[in-house]
Amino acid sequence: MTDGSQLRRWVLAKRPQGVPHADDFRLEQAPLSELQDGQALIRVDHISVDPGMRSRLSGDSYAPALPIGATIESAGVGTVLTSRNAKLKEGAQVWGGFGWQTHAISDGRGVQALDPAIYQGAIKATAAIGIFGIPGLTAYFGMAEIGKPKAEQVVLVSSAAGTVGATAGQLAKIAGCTAIGLAGSDAKCAYLKEIGFDVAINYKAAGDLTSAFKQAAPKGIDIYFDNVGGETLDAAIMNMRRGGRIVVSGQISEYNTTTPRGIRNTLPFITQRLRMEGLVVYDYGAQFVEARTQMAAWVREGKLTYREEIIDGLEQAPAAFIGLFSGDSFGRRLVHLGG
Amino acid sequence: MTDGSQLRRWVLAKRPQGVPHADDFRLEQAPLSELQDGQALIRVDHISVDPGMRSRLSGDSYAPALPIGATIESAGVGTVLTSRNAKLKEGAQVWGGFGWQTHAISDGRGVQALDPAIYQGAIKATAAIGIFGIPGLTAYFGMAEIGKPKAEQVVLVSSAAGTVGATAGQLAKIAGCTAIGLAGSDAKCAYLKEIGFDVAINYKAAGDLTSAFKQAAPKGIDIYFDNVGGETLDAAIMNMRRGGRIVVSGQISEYNTTTPRGIRNTLPFITQRLRMEGLVVYDYGAQFVEARTQMAAWVREGKLTYREEIIDGLEQAPAAFIGLFSGDSFGRRLVHLGG
Repeated sequence: MTDGSQLRRWVLAKRPQGVPHADDFRLEQAPLSELQDGQALIRVDHISVDPGMRSRLSGDSYAPALPIGATIESAGVGTVLTSRNAKLKEGAQVWGGFGWQTHAISDGRGVQALDPAIYQGAIKATAAIGIFGIPGLTAYFGMAEIGKPKAEQVVLVSSAAGTVGATAGQLAKIAGCTAIGLAGSDAKCAYLKEIGFDVAINYKAAGDLTSAFKQAAPKGIDIYFDNVGGETLDAAIMNMRRGGRIVVSGQISEYNTTTPRGIRNTLPFITQRLRMEGLVVYDYGAQFVEARTQMAAWVREGKLTYREEIIDGLEQAPAAFIGLFSGDSFGRRLVHLGG
Repeated sequence: MTDGSQLRRWVLAKRPQGVPHADDFRLEQAPLSELQDGQALIRVDHISVDPGMRSRLSGDSYAPALPIGATIESAGVGTVLTSRNAKLKEGAQVWGGFGWQTHAISDGRGVQALDPAIYQGAIKATAAIGIFGIPGLTAYFGMAEIGKPKAEQVVLVSSAAGTVGATAGQLAKIAGCTAIGLAGSDAKCAYLKEIGFDVAINYKAAGDLTSAFKQAAPKGIDIYFDNVGGETLDAAIMNMRRGGRIVVSGQISEYNTTTPRGIRNTLPFITQRLRMEGLVVYDYGAQFVEARTQMAAWVREGKLTYREEIIDGLEQAPAAFIGLFSGDSFGRRLVHLGG
């Protein structure tokens, strides 16, 4: 933490062209204003870096653009340092959309105290912005509401070593399915096998993906949990079994381009009666508590595991974010600021 | 009809490359074999030409290829001339997958007598392979099972002057929606307005489709009933409203190519929570009678109309089929053979 009267934060310096670059971000120092009635000062302990944030940095038409000069948005967990808000107790651990900054002053909106029934023992506060945060919940609702796995079905997951993908694959196993995971290195593939995937494919070494999927799932794929889009999605479509579901969770291959590749193969939607559906996890907000409670039980039973990759220092946030697009992340990537 | 001892038929001479050509088909004469016990001789009165048949002519991976030398498959309506089958009465009107031939010998499988409760008054037998056949039923189940229109929603339909599209648009109107139809000529657009579409867009004159759809549906599209795929589908995706459904009924723009265009835009599947789903109408076979009865009631009430374009003579079948791909068809295209 700083001296207490100043915060440090990363702001958007300019809009990225293609893959974001260090110059697109600027580190600033700013005074911490006095607390008003109803406000609390939160020390941000960990922040997340998310590929999905990429589209917010552009002025594209899909998501409201983050203004130039604004703090980069992200999830975070923190500790209440001082409080003039009855709901935010001093010393409490909280999570919220704090952004890439060392401190946040909050009136309590969008900030929630961590439930001690969940965050105890081996489950640390960081899980609140990982497996029990947006990534884990995306996997949970993507599988439960769109994928709808049934025992003995075949589930393919891309970006399977990330939190969304690793969670989706393990949920497939919990449902009694065969899980096939895609990742970009042998180390990640070894991790996938470790957490229960039946097959792990290193897509950088696999050659033609359509053939690789055919070999891994000779009878076809029932559910494709898609975090990447583009060529991988196309290859999955060519291998879907009749009545297959494609969960559009992320499209990381398409975020950094103004000329998206998309997919070539739409005929199988008819011949194989496919359904492709996207989700934004916030739509299921009313069911978050229930989902977290279920996932926490599975974590304690050892059926669901997660991996965090913690990078130290606010200074590293842009590099940690940019690295996501070269596929170098492994598990939930967080930046540790304090606490 | 022929002299009764010979039939004439069109067979597949070679597999089409791209748009089918007259040389891909060959007209043959063949002897009519003696009727066995359980068989009936059917005079084929009308046959259909369907864009969806295109993929059967190729050896592509989506549909089982029609063998070279085999009779071109199609729906047909006919009359039982002589019968040694108790279910097929002499003189009865029947429909089935007779193919492009003047006569068929049937053991009754796949052949059904027309229900006189439906085919009476203004509703002729040809409706059995049009609005009450696969095209009309595709519109019915595509809307009922995937589109699920609700009052005041906006429904876009491509190939709207064809039987599938015209039926889908009218079903949208029956459900209380706004219907926007796409067609390739001003005459077809005039027809769309005549049968109740609120807006008709001549896509050949509309320029950029994304802008044209935006103008026609400023608040976005809830349901896109897609018969064409490709660029039109892409433009629709860019205009879908949150929670929109895309019914993949046909992909005529993709049938004649070995390098399909597909779609570029998959990000809106996430941001707008879109669902895209294909159907093969035969999956709903158990509900065909119910659907036909409902549609026939709407026809008699004047809420649902259909248009047939009848081309005379078996010789014209290949040209009638090939013409579908240049967009020159208008309503259900049938070829009249006899009766």
